[in-house]
Amino acid sequence: MCIRDSANGGVLLRVLPELGAEDGPEAHRVVVDGHLVEIAGASEAGVFRGAQTFRQMLGPEAFRRAPVSAKRAWELPPVVVEDAPRFAWRGALLDVARHFMPKGGVLRYLDLLAAHKLNVLHLHLTDDQGWRLQVDRCPRLTEVGAWRARSKLGHRASPLWDERPHGGYYTKDDIREIVAYAAERHITVVPEIDVPGHSQAAIAAYPELGNTDVIDTTTLSVWDTWGINPNVLAPTDTTLAFYENVLTEVLDLFPSPFVHIGGDECPKGQWKASPAARARMAAEGLADEEELQSWFIRHFDRWLAARGRRLVGWDEILEGGTLGGGLTPGLTPGATVSSWRGRAGGIAAARAGHDVIMCPEQEVYLDHRQAPGDDEPVPIGWVRTLEDVYRFEPVPSGLSPAEADRVLGAQANLWTEVMENQQRVDYQAFPRLAAFAETVWSPLPAPAERDFASFERRMTTHYARLDALGVDYRPPGGPRPWQRRPGVLGRPLEGAPPIV
Amino acid sequence: MCIRDSANGGVLLRVLPELGAEDGPEAHRVVVDGHLVEIAGASEAGVFRGAQTFRQMLGPEAFRRAPVSAKRAWELPPVVVEDAPRFAWRGALLDVARHFMPKGGVLRYLDLLAAHKLNVLHLHLTDDQGWRLQVDRCPRLTEVGAWRARSKLGHRASPLWDERPHGGYYTKDDIREIVAYAAERHITVVPEIDVPGHSQAAIAAYPELGNTDVIDTTTLSVWDTWGINPNVLAPTDTTLAFYENVLTEVLDLFPSPFVHIGGDECPKGQWKASPAARARMAAEGLADEEELQSWFIRHFDRWLAARGRRLVGWDEILEGGTLGGGLTPGLTPGATVSSWRGRAGGIAAARAGHDVIMCPEQEVYLDHRQAPGDDEPVPIGWVRTLEDVYRFEPVPSGLSPAEADRVLGAQANLWTEVMENQQRVDYQAFPRLAAFAETVWSPLPAPAERDFASFERRMTTHYARLDALGVDYRPPGGPRPWQRRPGVLGRPLEGAPPIV
Repeated sequence: MCIRDSANGGVLLRVLPELGAEDGPEAHRVVVDGHLVEIAGASEAGVFRGAQTFRQMLGPEAFRRAPVSAKRAWELPPVVVEDAPRFAWRGALLDVARHFMPKGGVLRYLDLLAAHKLNVLHLHLTDDQGWRLQVDRCPRLTEVGAWRARSKLGHRASPLWDERPHGGYYTKDDIREIVAYAAERHITVVPEIDVPGHSQAAIAAYPELGNTDVIDTTTLSVWDTWGINPNVLAPTDTTLAFYENVLTEVLDLFPSPFVHIGGDECPKGQWKASPAARARMAAEGLADEEELQSWFIRHFDRWLAARGRRLVGWDEILEGGTLGGGLTPGLTPGATVSSWRGRAGGIAAARAGHDVIMCPEQEVYLDHRQAPGDDEPVPIGWVRTLEDVYRFEPVPSGLSPAEADRVLGAQANLWTEVMENQQRVDYQAFPRLAAFAETVWSPLPAPAERDFASFERRMTTHYARLDALGVDYRPPGGPRPWQRRPGVLGRPLEGAPPIV
Repeated sequence: MCIRDSANGGVLLRVLPELGAEDGPEAHRVVVDGHLVEIAGASEAGVFRGAQTFRQMLGPEAFRRAPVSAKRAWELPPVVVEDAPRFAWRGALLDVARHFMPKGGVLRYLDLLAAHKLNVLHLHLTDDQGWRLQVDRCPRLTEVGAWRARSKLGHRASPLWDERPHGGYYTKDDIREIVAYAAERHITVVPEIDVPGHSQAAIAAYPELGNTDVIDTTTLSVWDTWGINPNVLAPTDTTLAFYENVLTEVLDLFPSPFVHIGGDECPKGQWKASPAARARMAAEGLADEEELQSWFIRHFDRWLAARGRRLVGWDEILEGGTLGGGLTPGLTPGATVSSWRGRAGGIAAARAGHDVIMCPEQEVYLDHRQAPGDDEPVPIGWVRTLEDVYRFEPVPSGLSPAEADRVLGAQANLWTEVMENQQRVDYQAFPRLAAFAETVWSPLPAPAERDFASFERRMTTHYARLDALGVDYRPPGGPRPWQRRPGVLGRPLEGAPPIV
């Protein structure tokens, strides 16, 4: 494909499969030679990544949606760039459950991921605080579950509330549009439907999903504060059938080979008190509630595998493992682990032969504050500076080469409890997502040897690109006055994060 | 220009100037005939409007940003549509001063205006509560003026505050991008820099702009509540020179023939108490403070006219008229009036030979509530339903044909005191902006004879288009739960609005 005719110069786009022989489908080559530009990729995805490289060469203005200067000619020195990503999974999690992001904001976020050559959007669609996906067979999931009456302002210990209702959801056509828009940018949208914890919004919509023999689930509403919620799904046939229905519609909408089913932070208190849960444990020969959780996950693992998909779950899915033997409690071989509580889950999973996505909270949770000091808005977690993120190494040390190959890549996760709108999301994500993108794309040296000074110099240009993109990033000198949130309680953790 | 080759069908785009002989540059003709589609316009703008007509024919999916179904063929019956707008000025005011809308939101709003064939975005860039435009010579306008520490939540009588800082501004490149993006859609962006009232944000940044001999203007900050503000610009040479500098940069950025300088709601208390203002009045031979305001406006009217631009002002610019004779106090012939306090200003201006844009607050202020009932979010003003707006007639009765020709068109205005984000803006603007768009485009019968039932039937399809566009409109049955704002005080006005 050729844009403009080559007599006057032009941009030639080509698919050259041989480019990917060693470097995979996203390998690309950009050649600028006099009046001619050639962008070749090992696949269409490679051509698209190459076009992003070319856009970077053009300068910040190329990141705007309309020309800001009268010039119609671009000048570039002759150059050949050959590039390919280090990892196949270069992801970002966006939590649209805690605060809903309207569809247009998600499309914009996909544009931002594409500009950073990231290729997975992990969309956290359901949680205690909201259910964001239309499900035809279960309309109350959105009628009831898509909004809450008020929201905690700041960390859960804060006395403040935003008393305005908050809500919203994506229709099925919205999701189809998001998925198609992502596909045009060679980004896979991985949906997350969280079970068996993080489910109060679903239980508020369908009280029969909860542990009705322990509490009166009809009194539950969509949760209005943050934290780990004791109201979890009941391990009943009703619940399994319900979520099979939900997932059937999810599979219809999302072509992603991977479907995330959560599996994290499921308090066992209600199951301990529930005769129904005990009956289930007895019937299935489960020793304790950890195994019951494992049984729950295994059910959907097999269900997805039977439909040609692969389950992804938070690293808790490795627990309750006596049934399956060792650390992997009977998971199918394709089941994949999001290693979030540190590196240990990823290491264990890789050693057990499971694929892994590294997203340790100590290192790449972008909701954590990016600087010390009182100016950071609603400071949460450990200080993770731009430099810290630039020194993130996706492959944990101590893995054999074969085990290391199990690390599909990494993911930066953005949980939005204290991010009430797009500007707040931008602030937490950027500039750190640019550093993260480099750690998953480029074969950087070991963390301590990385040349952060050089990266920082390149960031000068990158800030101009982010300005062009309209990103409300954190400026190097600290937040702008309107990016601050004075008086809103956060939960800063002190000291260096325990890298485990 | 031909999209796809005509053997297999295609879309032919043509400029046919003769189409506009009677109907102006936006006249267009869309012909669907078998496999061929021809979109002809009297100008490029006409072709663009015709393309919007064609997009409407294609159905709601054509309003999404990526395909949601696998179908690659569209089926349309043979049809010929010829159309042209009734008015040359089909505008919408967006107030980005009271609540800042990030650049991407403004680009999206331009897309929405384009889809409704509106062609003027009146951008209200400055007010007491914020200054949103980078001005190189006056950096404190944005350093200080672009944010406020907190915001009144609801009407000014409400006891509630949002204690989070609020702010933001457009860089000059952002504005260039917005203007260029609008131009691609054949939309003119008319900037508004409000003087001499509605200026507290500027005074907070540059205290010398205020009436320093009356109050200590160094104590002023960007205003955090709503209403008419007593802190107005001082009628000094300093102020005139300052705003000439500002406007010089504004003219650089905005090619619009029209520049709005506000001129509304300027309380005269400080001028009455100011020796400097009295000295100015004496020096200029002005009888009272009304004439002083008129002098202020005349200054910028002449200043703009000397630079080939036309001043637009709110209908207060007709006052203080003894100097200029009658109702128009020495305004240049090109000065144009936004008739907002009703129709009277527009009638007076048209009779005095000035061009007029009709935007009576009783009829087309979309911040006013769109239904009775407690469910409307933060209800402000009179009830103006979708049907009321559909029955809006831009040309006031009683004008002669020549006077009626002075009505360039009309504008729907959206003031954002109680619209803190894009979703709230969407809710107030839609669906009513669709009805407004029809009143300025189509030659409808007299208001009482308009077939609202037919319009309402067509709205069924239009709601699906708005869904596709991701617009958070008010559903016909009332707000969705999360669109409500229970407990936030509004200021509903009772009864029918006085149409004056």
